[in-house]
Amino acid sequence: MNYAMIFQTLGYGMIVEAGLMIFSLIVSLIHGEFSAVEALAATIGSLAVLGFALSRIRPKNRQFYARDGFVVVTLLWLIFTAFGALPFVLCRVIPNYVDAYFEIMSGFTTTGASILLDLDVVPRGLMFWRCMTQWVGGMGVLVFMLAVLPMSNDSSMHLMRAEVPGPTKGKLVPRMRTTAVTLYLIYVAMSLIQMVLLWAGGMPLYEAITYTFNTASTGGFFVTNSAIAGYDSVYLEVVITVFMLLFGVNFYCYYLVLTGKWNKAFMNEEVLWYFGIAITMMVVLALTAMGQEGGFWKALRYSSFTVSSLMTTTGFSINDYNLWPQVSRSLILVVCLLGGCAGSTAGGPKTSRLIIMWKSLLRELRLMIRPRAVQQVRMDAKPLEEDTIRGTVYFMIAHMFILVLSFVLVSFDNLCPEDTVSAVISCLNNVGPGLGVVGPAGSYASLSYFSKIVLTLDMLLGRLEIFPILLSVMTLTKRVRSYR
Amino acid sequence: MNYAMIFQTLGYGMIVEAGLMIFSLIVSLIHGEFSAVEALAATIGSLAVLGFALSRIRPKNRQFYARDGFVVVTLLWLIFTAFGALPFVLCRVIPNYVDAYFEIMSGFTTTGASILLDLDVVPRGLMFWRCMTQWVGGMGVLVFMLAVLPMSNDSSMHLMRAEVPGPTKGKLVPRMRTTAVTLYLIYVAMSLIQMVLLWAGGMPLYEAITYTFNTASTGGFFVTNSAIAGYDSVYLEVVITVFMLLFGVNFYCYYLVLTGKWNKAFMNEEVLWYFGIAITMMVVLALTAMGQEGGFWKALRYSSFTVSSLMTTTGFSINDYNLWPQVSRSLILVVCLLGGCAGSTAGGPKTSRLIIMWKSLLRELRLMIRPRAVQQVRMDAKPLEEDTIRGTVYFMIAHMFILVLSFVLVSFDNLCPEDTVSAVISCLNNVGPGLGVVGPAGSYASLSYFSKIVLTLDMLLGRLEIFPILLSVMTLTKRVRSYR
Repeated sequence: MNYAMIFQTLGYGMIVEAGLMIFSLIVSLIHGEFSAVEALAATIGSLAVLGFALSRIRPKNRQFYARDGFVVVTLLWLIFTAFGALPFVLCRVIPNYVDAYFEIMSGFTTTGASILLDLDVVPRGLMFWRCMTQWVGGMGVLVFMLAVLPMSNDSSMHLMRAEVPGPTKGKLVPRMRTTAVTLYLIYVAMSLIQMVLLWAGGMPLYEAITYTFNTASTGGFFVTNSAIAGYDSVYLEVVITVFMLLFGVNFYCYYLVLTGKWNKAFMNEEVLWYFGIAITMMVVLALTAMGQEGGFWKALRYSSFTVSSLMTTTGFSINDYNLWPQVSRSLILVVCLLGGCAGSTAGGPKTSRLIIMWKSLLRELRLMIRPRAVQQVRMDAKPLEEDTIRGTVYFMIAHMFILVLSFVLVSFDNLCPEDTVSAVISCLNNVGPGLGVVGPAGSYASLSYFSKIVLTLDMLLGRLEIFPILLSVMTLTKRVRSYR
Repeated sequence: MNYAMIFQTLGYGMIVEAGLMIFSLIVSLIHGEFSAVEALAATIGSLAVLGFALSRIRPKNRQFYARDGFVVVTLLWLIFTAFGALPFVLCRVIPNYVDAYFEIMSGFTTTGASILLDLDVVPRGLMFWRCMTQWVGGMGVLVFMLAVLPMSNDSSMHLMRAEVPGPTKGKLVPRMRTTAVTLYLIYVAMSLIQMVLLWAGGMPLYEAITYTFNTASTGGFFVTNSAIAGYDSVYLEVVITVFMLLFGVNFYCYYLVLTGKWNKAFMNEEVLWYFGIAITMMVVLALTAMGQEGGFWKALRYSSFTVSSLMTTTGFSINDYNLWPQVSRSLILVVCLLGGCAGSTAGGPKTSRLIIMWKSLLRELRLMIRPRAVQQVRMDAKPLEEDTIRGTVYFMIAHMFILVLSFVLVSFDNLCPEDTVSAVISCLNNVGPGLGVVGPAGSYASLSYFSKIVLTLDMLLGRLEIFPILLSVMTLTKRVRSYR
């Protein structure tokens, strides 16, 4: 383990977080929220001092291995959240640190699960920070650093591999820093377009910015108590529905569109399935809920929003779907299990993983009948590497184990099995709301601290796609002997 | 495809079923149930005539391939159920054929899910048949045939591979017929011991026999409305608890015990985990339910019975655990997901699959850090074959797909998500009862015919462990080109 390099990278990370927090400080200053200014300034100060001290470390060896990458990514997310939660506690907006940690982890991981009961009392500076954590977490804390800081290509690769979601990594361009910058430019441009559209639709600028943060990252925090339904504007709902779906698409496709390869972008197998599943679920959900909502078209408006929101793991809601028929509630649980595309800001198992699993299952069946036949799993007309398939399959198995284990642990909170399973699925897949107590009309506030800690860990496991964290734990507890 | 051989084997199977049904006819004659005698005689007659006709087919080629085995197993189970359900319809005990098919599939697959609301009006001959389907299905319809009929070793192997549960097949002895006979001798001997113990405890002989059928097979049909709790005998409950657990153990261990290899039997990794998990869940469940049941020891009595019953996928109950606290209900759902040992009569994913998945996941993690290291997955101190690991992993993935798909289909019945998921888990894992509507105090009667058909298929998929059915469908629909 290259501890010197790890500490130095963590130091850089803390300086970056201090820099990001300055935006919130400015918002707080503009609105004259003095307690928030104090809390933010204190946090920025500590981050800067500690970060500067750590960044002074001069590693003799600049070599970075895969496992160093896993450890850095895991620790950096934990530290970002640890400091990110601080202003809320200092300011007494969230008095308990476990709650604050849950809230900010929910932010950085773009989950959107909240323990706040009254949003309108939160100072604007802190609310801005809460939403900004989602926007930064959406594309990845480290990808952001790679875009901003100069780093060796070797270490960048290991860091990026550990953080970018989806089964096939580093697809874009061989130079990692260029990739990071390209991804962020697309992300920023799309966010700006959405912000302008929201603003043009009558949303105040501050809310247009924060709601854009929460849509672009597929995070799903609400900004005001009246939420999105409060604007009562079909235009705003449509804009948000469309942009949620768009941010759930593989950013590689936008890169292809920008470079003029339209047909390649539109024939991407994952994207076609993603839209196919989304539209099917929208229509089916509308059909099941039309009795409740007074007609198909009204139901379609709600179901489109709900499916875009839950499938991309954003977690916004414009109605309480807990009041829908049971069949709709069951289907909603399934939508929460799917996730968006790989290489997007969406969470969940990702559409490409479902496709790979399905295709490799079919291959396995064929091999059972014809054991000696050569069978390839193909995607986008290219054969998939066996390593990608294995990684996908074991990701799903690890996902299943963590889901069941978390379910057992959270079940001691004595919620009904339905609410428990929906809370675990929602946090592990970074969706946000679940059913019942943790549904759109509820909050995670009433859960025990033990459950909140389990769910906090689930959010991080979901966002970093499990393996980096498990591997870090294995490395740090020396379950794996050194191989140097 | 060797159609001649397939039809001939199906013919033999029908003669065997006619023979089995004669026992029920005798029971009906003893009790003077004339409508049941008529119904049973008519069914036996048709089975014998059709079976005899088919068995006259003389195949030119006696070669049997793996895929022929899959098709035979799938068709035979469908046909056994189709005729097995007939007497109930002819006798008007179950007027609708879909219901009768559900009930008897639930019998042969040892699920124990029932649509009957009043057991005491069922003629004894038909009740005997209903319970006997469980006993025959427990060890396998085809294993029974192999034990009874002379068949070539080659075809036996393919048939047995397709029917015996668990990831490692044909472990016992190379000669398949000897294996089948050995398995059945152990099964019969243990059943006899249990029957005598129940009879000695004051159960009437008829009920002792039928309850033994339903315990030995881990089936779980009740015989009378008052059920097992009706005897109000701790002795009987203990006997049934112990025997449920014992029938969930790999029969290979009993074979080892019989041949004097005690230490090998008791150090079997799967069996140790199986008892470890069972005892842990019994204690935890007792702790969560002790408030409700008035004390730890009383709760332990119920929880031991419940865990033995649900983990071995028997599905008996002596109390309505739906009235337990929510945490107990959640844990019960997890117990239903586990299953017994491979090579036992229990259903579910099996303890050995969970162990293999866990160990191969750990190996995968180690390989991610040290890609070039040679890592083996070992069980019982022997390395596992890669094919077994792949089979296990893809079994779980297929299981997951079927679970989610069935959940979607059954959700249109508009039960709450909790009841729906418990019904699907319960049928797919051959447990029997679920939570809520389909719980111990409820029945599957109120479900729609569509849901009943989906769940009937789930029961068969669960009992034959998915692949034989999928492979048959693929073979019969020519998705796989001939390779001869």
